[in-house]
Amino acid sequence: MKVPRELLDYIDRNDEFVIATHINPEGDALGSSIALHLALKQTGKRSTVFCKDTVPHTYEFLPFHEVVRHDLPDVIERLVLLDCNSPERSGLESCVIKASAVIDHHTTTNNFGDIKWIKPDSPATGLMVFYLIKKLGVSISEAIASNLYTALAIDTGIFRFSNTTSDCMIVAAKLVREGANPALIAERLFNNYSRNRFLLLKEMLNTVEIHNGICVSTVTAETYERTGTAAHDTENFVNYPMLMDDIKISVLFRQIENGAWKISLRSKGVIDIASVAADFGGGGHRNAAGCILYAPLGESKSILLARLRGLVN
Amino acid sequence: MKVPRELLDYIDRNDEFVIATHINPEGDALGSSIALHLALKQTGKRSTVFCKDTVPHTYEFLPFHEVVRHDLPDVIERLVLLDCNSPERSGLESCVIKASAVIDHHTTTNNFGDIKWIKPDSPATGLMVFYLIKKLGVSISEAIASNLYTALAIDTGIFRFSNTTSDCMIVAAKLVREGANPALIAERLFNNYSRNRFLLLKEMLNTVEIHNGICVSTVTAETYERTGTAAHDTENFVNYPMLMDDIKISVLFRQIENGAWKISLRSKGVIDIASVAADFGGGGHRNAAGCILYAPLGESKSILLARLRGLVN
Repeated sequence: MKVPRELLDYIDRNDEFVIATHINPEGDALGSSIALHLALKQTGKRSTVFCKDTVPHTYEFLPFHEVVRHDLPDVIERLVLLDCNSPERSGLESCVIKASAVIDHHTTTNNFGDIKWIKPDSPATGLMVFYLIKKLGVSISEAIASNLYTALAIDTGIFRFSNTTSDCMIVAAKLVREGANPALIAERLFNNYSRNRFLLLKEMLNTVEIHNGICVSTVTAETYERTGTAAHDTENFVNYPMLMDDIKISVLFRQIENGAWKISLRSKGVIDIASVAADFGGGGHRNAAGCILYAPLGESKSILLARLRGLVN
Repeated sequence: MKVPRELLDYIDRNDEFVIATHINPEGDALGSSIALHLALKQTGKRSTVFCKDTVPHTYEFLPFHEVVRHDLPDVIERLVLLDCNSPERSGLESCVIKASAVIDHHTTTNNFGDIKWIKPDSPATGLMVFYLIKKLGVSISEAIASNLYTALAIDTGIFRFSNTTSDCMIVAAKLVREGANPALIAERLFNNYSRNRFLLLKEMLNTVEIHNGICVSTVTAETYERTGTAAHDTENFVNYPMLMDDIKISVLFRQIENGAWKISLRSKGVIDIASVAADFGGGGHRNAAGCILYAPLGESKSILLARLRGLVN
């Protein structure tokens, strides 16, 4: 993977940076940001890592996660924006940004960034940051390795998603050699359910209905209340029904305020549910998308199933 | 990983082999055996792949799985035994075996095999077979890559278990480069539940009881009957309660004939449940073991919990 010359020059010419990433940060956002911060430090450069939201409990195992700050100056002299590509996505709308470089693997239609290194075919921003760090001549410390391995692991579902390239696996192997602990990281990323969250999973599985290759499950406000859980506890739940070999689409309905329903959609293979989500004002990727429906549950299900049925026949 | 000279000589000197693996074969047994068969074929040598049991439905995606045979001559001239280390484990007790080589990553106390290449620190037999194949000068075809990747994937839980070495990941990366499809293989290995098996999972989760860091779940004969499932459908179920961050040991009770209970045990970190299983006449590894208890459910639970409680305090 070729790192743009102008990005290397930008880092080379300057001594102090603000590294920022997106709101609701996950492993790729945090791991990439912390790793770049540590690498810059090794070269004698200073950086501040900014994220509008706090580091989720799940990611508190990341070495040096405590460098992530939530306060910002009004003026940013030199920004490096990671794993997203707009000031809005990172909560920087109100800042004056004098110079900026964007490193991201998400597609974009905006034009933000004096320097743009955007590779939608990269499985993770962490992979790009690995190549950048190597170009900076920095040796991969154990802390850098653990942060970058986490970035690769979360965005490939630990090498289970279709974005898993051999390049990504070669880099992961190198990171393990430098001290990243794959079993420990997998444990922290996935075996981290609270007792209540496990209870919620059971409740959700008990709501499963199957309609001709489409699986529908539901979490109501009452279920959250009864199990002592909240919306973020349902992360990844929509994937459980995909365990079934004859399920082609999984849909999770989660109740939000005013009786509206937040819908998560997953599909297998070539079934494109991004367009379905878009029809209802949402968005996403081919196999993972979401939207919100403002109708009672029964009606919401009927509307969505009517649209999805055409995809599985 | 160094391949023993005598093993290479054994293969070099002979033209025809029987490759055999263990009963109840899984991905490492099958993937290693088929890959070695294909590699020998590329060098102009003939081999027969024997397994006493049929290839499970889950593994029918393996390229050339149809070469696995279930019939055997009374006399085996030259055996290569993979992923196990005794004639009993492979159903070869009644055969006359004239010469044999054993390639395995399980510990052994028996002395079977004229040539023994046994590496308990190898995450999978498939990793050993990869190095053997390279030494034979065979190029890794897509079919060999898919078989060996499956072997590595199943025995490391797709790089989640503590046996995941950087060497294993480097080899996995090479196999992906040669055509193994990580997403497809992950899908086939893990998202392969029948509708009934998914129902059984829900039923089992609904039986979960938690006792001070120990999770106990149960599948009765009546549950199998009601859900139209059988014992093999519970594979991996004992791991689900390990999702909870405060669960240190997971125990699954499965009813077998005459009211006896087959027990699967899983533990996290340094908690050694192999010795517990051994106390009850079973066996296994530090974090994964099993045994059988011949007492009614309530009594079986009490006996086992009394023994396990000391491990989590």
